[in-house]
Amino acid sequence: MKVTKVAIIGVGLIGGSIGLALKRNFKFKILNSKSLTYRIIGIGRHIEKLKLAKKFGAIDEFTTDFKSGVKDADIVVLASTVDTIVPIFKNIAPYLKPGCIVTDAGSIKAGIVNRISKILPKSVHFVGAHPLAGSEKTGVRFADSDLYKGAAIVITPLKNTPLASIKTISGMWKKMGGRVIMLSPEVHDNLVARTSHLPHILSAALTKIVNNINSKNKAASKLLAGSFKDMTRITDSDSENWAAICFGNMLELNKAINEYIEILKKVKVELNSPKKLEVFFSESKKNRCQLLQ
Amino acid sequence: MKVTKVAIIGVGLIGGSIGLALKRNFKFKILNSKSLTYRIIGIGRHIEKLKLAKKFGAIDEFTTDFKSGVKDADIVVLASTVDTIVPIFKNIAPYLKPGCIVTDAGSIKAGIVNRISKILPKSVHFVGAHPLAGSEKTGVRFADSDLYKGAAIVITPLKNTPLASIKTISGMWKKMGGRVIMLSPEVHDNLVARTSHLPHILSAALTKIVNNINSKNKAASKLLAGSFKDMTRITDSDSENWAAICFGNMLELNKAINEYIEILKKVKVELNSPKKLEVFFSESKKNRCQLLQ
Repeated sequence: MKVTKVAIIGVGLIGGSIGLALKRNFKFKILNSKSLTYRIIGIGRHIEKLKLAKKFGAIDEFTTDFKSGVKDADIVVLASTVDTIVPIFKNIAPYLKPGCIVTDAGSIKAGIVNRISKILPKSVHFVGAHPLAGSEKTGVRFADSDLYKGAAIVITPLKNTPLASIKTISGMWKKMGGRVIMLSPEVHDNLVARTSHLPHILSAALTKIVNNINSKNKAASKLLAGSFKDMTRITDSDSENWAAICFGNMLELNKAINEYIEILKKVKVELNSPKKLEVFFSESKKNRCQLLQ
Repeated sequence: MKVTKVAIIGVGLIGGSIGLALKRNFKFKILNSKSLTYRIIGIGRHIEKLKLAKKFGAIDEFTTDFKSGVKDADIVVLASTVDTIVPIFKNIAPYLKPGCIVTDAGSIKAGIVNRISKILPKSVHFVGAHPLAGSEKTGVRFADSDLYKGAAIVITPLKNTPLASIKTISGMWKKMGGRVIMLSPEVHDNLVARTSHLPHILSAALTKIVNNINSKNKAASKLLAGSFKDMTRITDSDSENWAAICFGNMLELNKAINEYIEILKKVKVELNSPKKLEVFFSESKKNRCQLLQ
């Protein structure tokens, strides 16, 4: 019986959770093969992190040698931080076997997909992906086989990606419990700039303004209620990772911040009208309800 | 044995929770009297709401007649929406008995305290208060005797308020589990503009920008993860109430929005530098940790 080999590069919260979720769905058929067994190999630079991932059951074996790690892989998942995905792909590309399907888990898509498409070997297929799941926690010790259950998974295939490869990657995420949505990389980046990336900036900016006032009057920190805690929870996310994500989506984020500033400027004008403020709040309340349906 | 009478005007989430918390602390000594028993009277315009408050045990009796409701009260708590506090006080002031202490639970202080101080009868004392507790839920059915446990309670006495009255109101909130902080009304409004009022505007504005993009591409609503849900939870608050609060604190909120826009403009410039973005995120992360200590 053929053993299907899945290489996960980067076994932190995201990669580790993929490993756990795949291993839980043990009888998952990959590549339309008749194989019912597969093996997950974790690849990374830090031996200690890899050992931990194996201890937690997220991977079957591991190596710090990227070349040997990917050479027999049927599927390669690039689950490292967004700024490292393309450089890592560049390094491993010559060693990928024909028919290998590569996917990623990066929070930005256009920059990654367009650059990878230019250096993609003819015999290898790439299906970009972005699982909209995560946590402010980092590291494999927080990995969860249910992380992708019910989560939106955006996949962004290239125009010439074979349908079979799209189905394989799509099927892999569905098996992990995800809701797969296919979008172009550009539309993805346009949407997540507002639904995900902007909230991280707003959250950090709120922390900053409260810190500024607290440095003038220490009573401020005593007045922080649930609203501040909830709105700044994501400030606790990995700073380096989010810097790379925002940098990678800077054009759309720049537009999103401009749009947001325009909304705030309009609210400023409405501050002297309780009626207009009420419309602003009640419309947002209604919209939120519809958006989260 | 003397029965101490507490009149609560407005028995929704805030007023109802005060009633429940006071009744739980049954042996609470009020006004330095030797009285160990007291009676809570709920006052409001809607008989159905008052009946519900009594059913839930938040009040002992009720009336829709404000005059008769307050005439024997030792303490009057104005727990209605911020825009109604001063008009209600104006109506009840002639009927308050000498020595009566009036407090409120409004989220803004300068506008309320300054206007009440001008119409305060000589024999009555006023100690403004703002419990920093609440929920996006409204109505007495969500009232909770633990709502004020651990919550910051800002009290804003007038310059000539007798110390005994300050101690009574301060003691009442402490008995309900609150952490009492004394501030001037102006400092209170300056701080909460940034710690509480601005977050409500930011939350509604985030909902608006996401709704705008979703009206162009319905995929947006499918991409909403935990960050959006958490950051917009407070959008579900009572719109009329929050419109009145923001209107009541418009000067400080206007400044706070300007400061926030300046932070966003600085972030826009930093979007092309992963290093600077990382400093922005990591400083916010560190500051949040310190602020919530």
